[in-house]
Amino acid sequence: MLGIFNEIKSDLQVLDKKLQKVVSAEDLFLSQMASYLLKAGGKRLRPAFAFLSARFYNYKLENVLPLAVALELIHMASLVHDDVVDAAATRRGVPTVRAKWGNRMSMHVGDWIFAKSLMMISEYEKIPMVAKTLSQISVKMCEGEIQQISSAYKVEQTIKDYFYRIERKTALLISASCQLGAVVCGAPEAIHLPLKRFGYKIGIAFQIVDDVLDLSADQKELGKPVGGDLRQGIITLPMIYALKNSAYRERLSVIIQKHSKSEEEIQEAISLISKSGGIDYANSVVDRYVTRAKEELEHLPNIPARDVLYEIADFVKNRKF
Amino acid sequence: MLGIFNEIKSDLQVLDKKLQKVVSAEDLFLSQMASYLLKAGGKRLRPAFAFLSARFYNYKLENVLPLAVALELIHMASLVHDDVVDAAATRRGVPTVRAKWGNRMSMHVGDWIFAKSLMMISEYEKIPMVAKTLSQISVKMCEGEIQQISSAYKVEQTIKDYFYRIERKTALLISASCQLGAVVCGAPEAIHLPLKRFGYKIGIAFQIVDDVLDLSADQKELGKPVGGDLRQGIITLPMIYALKNSAYRERLSVIIQKHSKSEEEIQEAISLISKSGGIDYANSVVDRYVTRAKEELEHLPNIPARDVLYEIADFVKNRKF
Repeated sequence: MLGIFNEIKSDLQVLDKKLQKVVSAEDLFLSQMASYLLKAGGKRLRPAFAFLSARFYNYKLENVLPLAVALELIHMASLVHDDVVDAAATRRGVPTVRAKWGNRMSMHVGDWIFAKSLMMISEYEKIPMVAKTLSQISVKMCEGEIQQISSAYKVEQTIKDYFYRIERKTALLISASCQLGAVVCGAPEAIHLPLKRFGYKIGIAFQIVDDVLDLSADQKELGKPVGGDLRQGIITLPMIYALKNSAYRERLSVIIQKHSKSEEEIQEAISLISKSGGIDYANSVVDRYVTRAKEELEHLPNIPARDVLYEIADFVKNRKF
Repeated sequence: MLGIFNEIKSDLQVLDKKLQKVVSAEDLFLSQMASYLLKAGGKRLRPAFAFLSARFYNYKLENVLPLAVALELIHMASLVHDDVVDAAATRRGVPTVRAKWGNRMSMHVGDWIFAKSLMMISEYEKIPMVAKTLSQISVKMCEGEIQQISSAYKVEQTIKDYFYRIERKTALLISASCQLGAVVCGAPEAIHLPLKRFGYKIGIAFQIVDDVLDLSADQKELGKPVGGDLRQGIITLPMIYALKNSAYRERLSVIIQKHSKSEEEIQEAISLISKSGGIDYANSVVDRYVTRAKEELEHLPNIPARDVLYEIADFVKNRKF
């Protein structure tokens, strides 16, 4: 086990060097912004999934590296664009590109990072599935964001609407990270399809946990203010549950629909959602998805990377930030 | 000649149907926005170049159609994003997506349209050059936009800076439209390289004309207010010439550097640029590029499509909108 963790660690170091190289640019200003984004960090979760999945079949770092870079760039680009539209001031505890350089720059930097990911993807000319999968997912990621905007403050939205959104926002890219990590090493369907399903389920669980933490985490640990979703009118699973089942649903509905909420109203809403069992309910859904994700791993060979995937599944469930 | 114009016309009709189909979406709101953008029109210049270039070698509409759609989508996406950052209220005489639906939506719609173009491009899995060329150009298009923002209001910029920008903003995609139209039909280098160079030179000329028209066109014909570049601090070729060579350069420099200009100042600047010979100079550069573009056509077989390319070259030079 220690061996595989060390291997992944060294893969992630190679990844960071490669990322740094890929986002270096002639334009000094652009280079600065891109480096700043890289240094702002992130969990490198998607590359890690690709590196682990690749180990189930004929693993070669050089085969996975362009994919891992592309996955992280797609994710970074979507974060930069999210920060533009959400007018966010901090992410992971540090000022966003938008807060530092303004909306106009951020949008183009996001576009630029995304286009760089396409250059990486185009290296897989012999595995058309890579470009096909990632272009389809990029379309759906945008659809998730668009639905998030058009459904904002709409208290009548359903659990189905919520799942439509988090599948697109999060689960599909994590699913592709797991699947394609194996695909680029030449793995057959018997390997890459269980990985795809594992990634999908873990991705759903991951996003629900994110949404729960936004209501219940410690602000310092989270690196951003709690209640962000409430402020932006994003209605997450704990809220949908509470809006349907709570004795306080009328008061909660009034607060959630307000486009401008006081700090007291945010705290009141969080307390009502919690008292109504919304957070417990969402956590139970997370448990179910994590369990089902782990079941997918049973179809895979028992190698050290599989144990790490089990551990990540438990981490997703238990994380506090 | 009439035959080829009719052929192109029918190709462009097929293109518009296909575009409509590609941008239809589950999400009603998204479909509406995308259709609105399509109906807002545009010259379909890039698809037209691809359709014409394809005729130099084994032309089949179905081979070129996904490329033509992708080219128009890339162009549309970049326009939607430009309108976000420029806070433009109209384009081609009608309200922009941004003005109608807001910045947040526009950014994601732009992203979505761009991602749709990738799905089209991924159909050329047997011609890796398509994805490689278009991903590289997408990166450079962003670099052009970024340089445009970081160089805004900077009167010390050079003609070289200007060419760096218009190459990326405009010329490379038009160049690729001409080249790849032939490439996707299997044309050899002897065909697609002259087309690439023709497209590059025409693209440069096209953008300079755009910048001249922004200072000298009739507002009604142009479909947007003149002086837009001056307002946004974008320093174009006629201005660079006047800032260097004019007797009025000090006054001009003062106006250009103002972040907020009155209507009188805009008119004064336009008049100073014109009196200084900036517009004449830019037009002479256009003439040179159009002539050099036409010279590239001499390397190509004498087919009706070639005559149309000659005519387009003259149209670019003489257009008033």
